[in-house]
Amino acid sequence: MILPSVTDIRSAHERIKPFIHRTPVMTSLQLNRMFDCDLFFKCENFQKVGAFKFRGATNAVRLLPDEEKKKGVVSHSSGNHAAALALAAAMNGIKAYIVMPETAAEVKKNAVAGYGAEITFCEPTAEARENTARDIAEKTGAVLIHPYDNFNVICGQGTAALELMNEISDLDIIVAPVGGGGLMSGTCTAARGISGKSIKIVGAEPLNANDAWKSFTTGVLCPSVNPQTVADGLLTSLSELTFSIIRNNADQILTVSEEAIIECMLLIWERMKIIAEASAATVLAAVMENPEFFRAKRTGLIISGGNVDFRSFYLESVKYATTG
Amino acid sequence: MILPSVTDIRSAHERIKPFIHRTPVMTSLQLNRMFDCDLFFKCENFQKVGAFKFRGATNAVRLLPDEEKKKGVVSHSSGNHAAALALAAAMNGIKAYIVMPETAAEVKKNAVAGYGAEITFCEPTAEARENTARDIAEKTGAVLIHPYDNFNVICGQGTAALELMNEISDLDIIVAPVGGGGLMSGTCTAARGISGKSIKIVGAEPLNANDAWKSFTTGVLCPSVNPQTVADGLLTSLSELTFSIIRNNADQILTVSEEAIIECMLLIWERMKIIAEASAATVLAAVMENPEFFRAKRTGLIISGGNVDFRSFYLESVKYATTG
Repeated sequence: MILPSVTDIRSAHERIKPFIHRTPVMTSLQLNRMFDCDLFFKCENFQKVGAFKFRGATNAVRLLPDEEKKKGVVSHSSGNHAAALALAAAMNGIKAYIVMPETAAEVKKNAVAGYGAEITFCEPTAEARENTARDIAEKTGAVLIHPYDNFNVICGQGTAALELMNEISDLDIIVAPVGGGGLMSGTCTAARGISGKSIKIVGAEPLNANDAWKSFTTGVLCPSVNPQTVADGLLTSLSELTFSIIRNNADQILTVSEEAIIECMLLIWERMKIIAEASAATVLAAVMENPEFFRAKRTGLIISGGNVDFRSFYLESVKYATTG
Repeated sequence: MILPSVTDIRSAHERIKPFIHRTPVMTSLQLNRMFDCDLFFKCENFQKVGAFKFRGATNAVRLLPDEEKKKGVVSHSSGNHAAALALAAAMNGIKAYIVMPETAAEVKKNAVAGYGAEITFCEPTAEARENTARDIAEKTGAVLIHPYDNFNVICGQGTAALELMNEISDLDIIVAPVGGGGLMSGTCTAARGISGKSIKIVGAEPLNANDAWKSFTTGVLCPSVNPQTVADGLLTSLSELTFSIIRNNADQILTVSEEAIIECMLLIWERMKIIAEASAATVLAAVMENPEFFRAKRTGLIISGGNVDFRSFYLESVKYATTG
């Protein structure tokens, strides 16, 4: 198994730089005071499609051989990766086929359709999604771009940490959320490659979907079975590839409670006035639940995305106020 | 009645610059496409205390004679002005007395108390608040700093438009929300002073609290009576001072529906990944409801604040998801 190096991430960065946003690094005096440390938020919620996923998708799409570009790409993600792949493909004149469960949120369907992808709906099961995607790949020759079990995707995701560390020197700790491990693998590779052993690399994972923690602790890949967490971007489990990278590089996987995730999401909204999704709030939840580990440290936090379905709950709550 | 000039606003800017955040101007390709115009969002939601009010409060506090500084300041606002005055006073070593209704949201009480202000609670009526504030002023000698009917406050608020126009040249239109008219008066003064008749100056006001529209249209000051709007920062009515400035300078007051305010607030959250409060969303609602007026124009929008009480509705809505 070939693992990526920081050189691969630097190459990816050069490759995708014209297409991505260089997202800002934000700080909050209030949160620094509250947690007694220096926090640097790398705001991938401001990335195109509202999540870091656009980095990996763009890198993967740009690296396709011309023959494959002509046939297009396919994905069976229903989350941020689908939108990211659809936009990355559209920006490069490539056809994208996205398989989504019929039950996907209207806002997600609209986003993917808005980027010009061809959507195929299927039953809301993992099996139906994979089979449908495989059928499309066979019929059209489109290349399946996996959301995280893909070398080029991982290299793209690592560019967020690369930019953060180029901008903020001397970080003591860097924290990324862990779902399937694509962002965490890229973060590990970039941070270890840039700072060697002088930086602690931490994954933040919901306790309710703690496959990375289990795998990291036992040394054996242990996928989650039907996990339930408010951090709905982190339901997936590590692959052999992401597990290898994380096992070789991470210092810690810190699991966080649902309560801490929600509290930290609200804190980011209220104090920083930016939208972070629940999955992104896990990194601050790790700080909240491990004060000794982070005290007085300079910590980089990758805010992975900002796609929150406000309509589903906000409109109901304000009805009372809209007295014509 | 002496009205402020752009020179006064430039002086205010020099005075408060070391204390305020220079807030970013953000753009959104998606929103530009959606509304077929170029929108420049001046993000006062990122200002200290989460609202432009900190500009005016700081200017007013800095301009107090030394004798008055010793006695402190008092306000009977329960909104962003209270927090702004409390922090501006604290940063200048001045005592602040804030009168709040017992019924004020816990988060607002905590914010004001956190800035070290002395809070006096009273019955939740305008009369009780004004009487309580007057009693405090008489007893302590503290100076009442009105949230908008105050020359120095208006000059401070105008610095948001000043920064926006210094950064983005050739705006065709500038839009600010109108409540009591402090921000709108400052915006009028700055924009007319800088660009003369080449810029259109527009106030955005909830139809449900349309005293500025009525006053502007009839030429007679017509305060609202018990208005109800989701834009709870815009319930107040113009004063003689703000009405004079607005009547002399504004080109239009555009009233907006509750539905448009809420839709635009959600659009800003979803597309820009930043928190704008309902009062701030009125400026985008004005664009949404008047497409011909804004089409193909370069429009500056003052996003006045980002203080949204998410806890009151979000926590309820996610309970279902927090299955331990």
